[in-house]
Amino acid sequence: MALLHPDRLFPAHPETRDIARSLYERVRDLPIVSPHGHTDPSWFALNEPFSDAANLLITPDHYLFRMLYSQGVPLQQLGVPDANGQQPDVDPREVWRLFAKHWYLFAGTPSRIWLDHVFQNVFGIDERLSADTADGIFDHIGECLAKDDFRPRALFERFNIEVIATTESPLDDLRHHDTIRASGWSGKVVTAFRPDPVVDPEFEGFNDNVDRLGEITGEDTSTWKGYLAALRNRRAYFMERGATSTDHGHPTARTENLSQDEAEALFNSVRAGLEYAADAERFRGQMLTEMARMSLDDGLVMQIHPGSFRNHNEWLFRNYGRDKGADIPMATDYVNDLKPLLDAFGNERDLSIILFTLDETVYSRELAPLAGHYPCLKLGPSWWFHDSPEGMRRFRSQVTETAGLYNTVGFNDDTRAFLSIPARHDLSRRIDCGWLAEMVAEHRIELDVAEDLAPKLAYQFAKDAYKL
Amino acid sequence: MALLHPDRLFPAHPETRDIARSLYERVRDLPIVSPHGHTDPSWFALNEPFSDAANLLITPDHYLFRMLYSQGVPLQQLGVPDANGQQPDVDPREVWRLFAKHWYLFAGTPSRIWLDHVFQNVFGIDERLSADTADGIFDHIGECLAKDDFRPRALFERFNIEVIATTESPLDDLRHHDTIRASGWSGKVVTAFRPDPVVDPEFEGFNDNVDRLGEITGEDTSTWKGYLAALRNRRAYFMERGATSTDHGHPTARTENLSQDEAEALFNSVRAGLEYAADAERFRGQMLTEMARMSLDDGLVMQIHPGSFRNHNEWLFRNYGRDKGADIPMATDYVNDLKPLLDAFGNERDLSIILFTLDETVYSRELAPLAGHYPCLKLGPSWWFHDSPEGMRRFRSQVTETAGLYNTVGFNDDTRAFLSIPARHDLSRRIDCGWLAEMVAEHRIELDVAEDLAPKLAYQFAKDAYKL
Amino acid sequence: MALLHPDRLFPAHPETRDIARSLYERVRDLPIVSPHGHTDPSWFALNEPFSDAANLLITPDHYLFRMLYSQGVPLQQLGVPDANGQQPDVDPREVWRLFAKHWYLFAGTPSRIWLDHVFQNVFGIDERLSADTADGIFDHIGECLAKDDFRPRALFERFNIEVIATTESPLDDLRHHDTIRASGWSGKVVTAFRPDPVVDPEFEGFNDNVDRLGEITGEDTSTWKGYLAALRNRRAYFMERGATSTDHGHPTARTENLSQDEAEALFNSVRAGLEYAADAERFRGQMLTEMARMSLDDGLVMQIHPGSFRNHNEWLFRNYGRDKGADIPMATDYVNDLKPLLDAFGNERDLSIILFTLDETVYSRELAPLAGHYPCLKLGPSWWFHDSPEGMRRFRSQVTETAGLYNTVGFNDDTRAFLSIPARHDLSRRIDCGWLAEMVAEHRIELDVAEDLAPKLAYQFAKDAYKL
Repeated sequence: MALLHPDRLFPAHPETRDIARSLYERVRDLPIVSPHGHTDPSWFALNEPFSDAANLLITPDHYLFRMLYSQGVPLQQLGVPDANGQQPDVDPREVWRLFAKHWYLFAGTPSRIWLDHVFQNVFGIDERLSADTADGIFDHIGECLAKDDFRPRALFERFNIEVIATTESPLDDLRHHDTIRASGWSGKVVTAFRPDPVVDPEFEGFNDNVDRLGEITGEDTSTWKGYLAALRNRRAYFMERGATSTDHGHPTARTENLSQDEAEALFNSVRAGLEYAADAERFRGQMLTEMARMSLDDGLVMQIHPGSFRNHNEWLFRNYGRDKGADIPMATDYVNDLKPLLDAFGNERDLSIILFTLDETVYSRELAPLAGHYPCLKLGPSWWFHDSPEGMRRFRSQVTETAGLYNTVGFNDDTRAFLSIPARHDLSRRIDCGWLAEMVAEHRIELDVAEDLAPKLAYQFAKDAYKL
Repeated sequence: MALLHPDRLFPAHPETRDIARSLYERVRDLPIVSPHGHTDPSWFALNEPFSDAANLLITPDHYLFRMLYSQGVPLQQLGVPDANGQQPDVDPREVWRLFAKHWYLFAGTPSRIWLDHVFQNVFGIDERLSADTADGIFDHIGECLAKDDFRPRALFERFNIEVIATTESPLDDLRHHDTIRASGWSGKVVTAFRPDPVVDPEFEGFNDNVDRLGEITGEDTSTWKGYLAALRNRRAYFMERGATSTDHGHPTARTENLSQDEAEALFNSVRAGLEYAADAERFRGQMLTEMARMSLDDGLVMQIHPGSFRNHNEWLFRNYGRDKGADIPMATDYVNDLKPLLDAFGNERDLSIILFTLDETVYSRELAPLAGHYPCLKLGPSWWFHDSPEGMRRFRSQVTETAGLYNTVGFNDDTRAFLSIPARHDLSRRIDCGWLAEMVAEHRIELDVAEDLAPKLAYQFAKDAYKL
Repeated sequence: MALLHPDRLFPAHPETRDIARSLYERVRDLPIVSPHGHTDPSWFALNEPFSDAANLLITPDHYLFRMLYSQGVPLQQLGVPDANGQQPDVDPREVWRLFAKHWYLFAGTPSRIWLDHVFQNVFGIDERLSADTADGIFDHIGECLAKDDFRPRALFERFNIEVIATTESPLDDLRHHDTIRASGWSGKVVTAFRPDPVVDPEFEGFNDNVDRLGEITGEDTSTWKGYLAALRNRRAYFMERGATSTDHGHPTARTENLSQDEAEALFNSVRAGLEYAADAERFRGQMLTEMARMSLDDGLVMQIHPGSFRNHNEWLFRNYGRDKGADIPMATDYVNDLKPLLDAFGNERDLSIILFTLDETVYSRELAPLAGHYPCLKLGPSWWFHDSPEGMRRFRSQVTETAGLYNTVGFNDDTRAFLSIPARHDLSRRIDCGWLAEMVAEHRIELDVAEDLAPKLAYQFAKDAYKL
């Protein structure tokens, strides 16, 4: 028995499914362009083997352990380190068994589809994970991981990745990227510039981070002008390591369009530690506009990922730290919040800002109308909790009629889970081909147009939008 | 001609429909677990016959008469009593004729499906209701209701109800529940604790209600400590009458996490009648947290039903009172509003809070991410206006991928309309089986998994979640 | 090759499609009732030939040029006049070529379906528009437009328009409507009363407009009483030219229920130019209530079209003026905002208020519950960005179960694009028949009920709701 059905995720109606299959044939083997994600560049720099199934697949993946946590399984038993990075003393095999015993919880979730894809296509497993099969699968994965074919670079090549972007702080020295480049390996791994730690006054250690940014760049980051120069300097450093984009993970989409005098005064107040929450929000907002101004000069594509209430679970944050599955979306406004930035740069043809959202209500109400009008705006794919069959369908159904397809940018896997990258792209390709097939079956798009669009959605749009 | 098609509500595509049918066969005859609703316990205590079609089916059902009212039919002509409880002088047969004449208004609504189910399955009627058939159907129902087979207890048994929960105020003496228990009848009817009249300072007669709560329990409800003791006392009283849950119908999901000193001061101000709207809101919010604290002790499952603007129609409220079809949903926030309670008890494995909503935008944005993370949270089914084929499908489609199915609690009929209970459960079972069938047809859930899930969604999840 | 498939927009599943086809046969040839739109009455008054494909179809249609603008095409190159009305010096044939070259952008949008319908059914074109076919199609359309058969009145008759409403300001003298009536032509063209320029203090030239209203009507619009009298007077003038409705395009749905003294004071302050944004909002809100009061007297149906952030693109507004594709929807509240008006007139059976929205989240949460209760409320069809296959399906799916179909008002084309009117009505009829077919296929509506409903949705509901 295979874990994956060849027609999975296609529409069930036979004629429509036939169209979906034929479109999918055109995109199935296209290379993967992964323009935004969170893989660790050290994997590709050092090319060391991954350790075991639990530490590779479960412990670092908050998509997975959050579901068990919601059902009462303590994080400690899943091997999740505490806020000080202390690993609990728990056998990976026991973690795996515990996970396997709860695998039924994932019925109907994308995690189930992704992990089954990893089992079958990466490891050749055809048994369903359960308490009964846990040990056998754990051992089998362990044996695989010990082989050279399963080291990061070999997998990268086997996955047919044309290019992958990681995401780093301006304070990162990008040594792993340098190592990759110096190694002569052909795999293309680029960085992306994520300045949250030095532009968000509420980020842990903000002031120290900005001081450190000054040291790294040799600019005087105690002044507004020096601070901007340091950011410009660092963007150039990232671009030398292949960066074509920046990324901004603010709580809201708020932007500001202050005069330079106002901005300078705000910076001084923020740096003096006098800021209130409202000032922090204004400063983040102004920095989005400053980043757009810099992008007009250096050509970096901007990504805005707003709307997450990070670390919503206070106890968990104190005891286990960030990124433990407790980031919860909030209602997000784009129409009012983006206006200051758009007033400044909205009509610039040479600026490209890619908008994401965790609030699906804005797809048809705000994002599609904005992207269907402003030359600088494009829409990122359905994100995070919405990176799923139903989420992707809602995105297409709610965005396309107003924004068209050419104001969208293809797929982002946006993941730390390296082994799941082919699964995620495959899922996206299947859903998009199924959606196109339905449009063809209802005579809303001609077949030849769908045949032209399928590879653009799967590959070309991402490459073009991110200048990769 | 039958009123009900055997394949109603299943997907139209033949292969998918076949799967839906086969799943439905597995759940069709399962007993009904009705863990939350508003039937009148006196029906089962006194077991008196229902009077006539109009007074049984139309006059008390604001789902039904609201539609006629929206089209200009005065409530008086429908036999709806005024705010003083005064019945208008109108012949039930005339009410029924008026309703029958407007039956076409319900095309495409769940009310149409429910009532047709009642006509066919409870009364054996196979003619469509209309002006022409009104008298015949009225007479036929009248004849049935005169028979012992149509008394409340007989219907309860015929409906295969394993357990039903009613909902009562802490000021209720639960005499009908006592009567049922003393009667030796085997039907299981339990109560649920709905403290709105004594925890909401804006509820009619709040201060008198709290005084009365003191008298009933022998606690001094003029003090914060005595008030809490009285509530604890009353919860125990309800638990002795089978209660396993509390229910909270607040305008918002606002919670508070005040110190006991702050809470006491707020209570004193509220009791002194000094409160402002903001204080009332804070007090309600604090009381949700207090109820959670008590639930940790006594094990009652909490239900939160927020987001209704009650009695929106001022003139109607003045002239006809509560519950006349003028409760209108509002946008509801859960991420910020629940945080104080979750800060206090979010990680408790022994606490169970079931969240409902009238604002579907929160399904994927807020509720699924919250329930897919916090151990204490589960999601109630689609509620009220969304207790419908499309509403249920949106719930499954927007919740499952992030929260999974095991963080949901099966079906609630939440109704006063006793005769419609089998219809509502049947509708829910059909929609869930159809949804599972579509997941199977798209190879997103395996058939054996769907076969395991169908009876859980129809029966077991409700039983487990409500400890019934 | 035809541009249009005969089964376009019907569900793909064969049995459901057969039902959709049979329902569509019943409505395809029904006359067009266009109760709300923005065609220019001078077309029908003067009956002059349209000039050329670009000036007829592209330059005035912000649905179309916004998409090219979003992809970096300057408006000047598309022949769009600047804010002073200055036409750029650009050859219409070049505009057409530029548009044709970008026609691929519209894949999956309703614009594509509408314009293909115009090409095939109005002009007999069967080639797809592209850079290659641009010149041939431009020439062919030009030849057609030179013929008498393509003058406005001939097209009106060919389109089988039973009645069309235009929309005018109270300051308009309606001379074109008088000309049409005096001409003896049988085409029925009526006006609608859109008082925004004289009831919205933030409308350009508000104070001058109100002065002018006084001159036109002979009332003293420097006083509240005179102002109301002038509005009453002008409504009567419009009704003599066939108006059966008013239309209100406010930024929000805010209403007020002030005493006449308060309203008078607010009017005086607004007229004295002392208003702040909040006062302007209050005044607009009060004027909705005043308009409802007048409608109770004169019987005009009210339409409320709230929720658009007009002229969001500041630079574009300054350089190109209004209506250039930069109106962006905002989240809109109806439950709280409409309450003051509903407190005043919500239970009036002789008042009819049709609500529209750009915020789809209110369909199931607010609009359907409101319209399913209040006698004075009905729901307009999916509007503007949602006037599309997916938008219409979401409307039906989210509204029907709570409001029923009889609280909706059929279709509005709401367009300036005269030639697309048959395309828009055809699209709506196809989608509604497809939706009904799905309800029939799932046995949620009987076939004979669907056969009764289809012509109501396509024709009768609009005629009845707008008293046409």
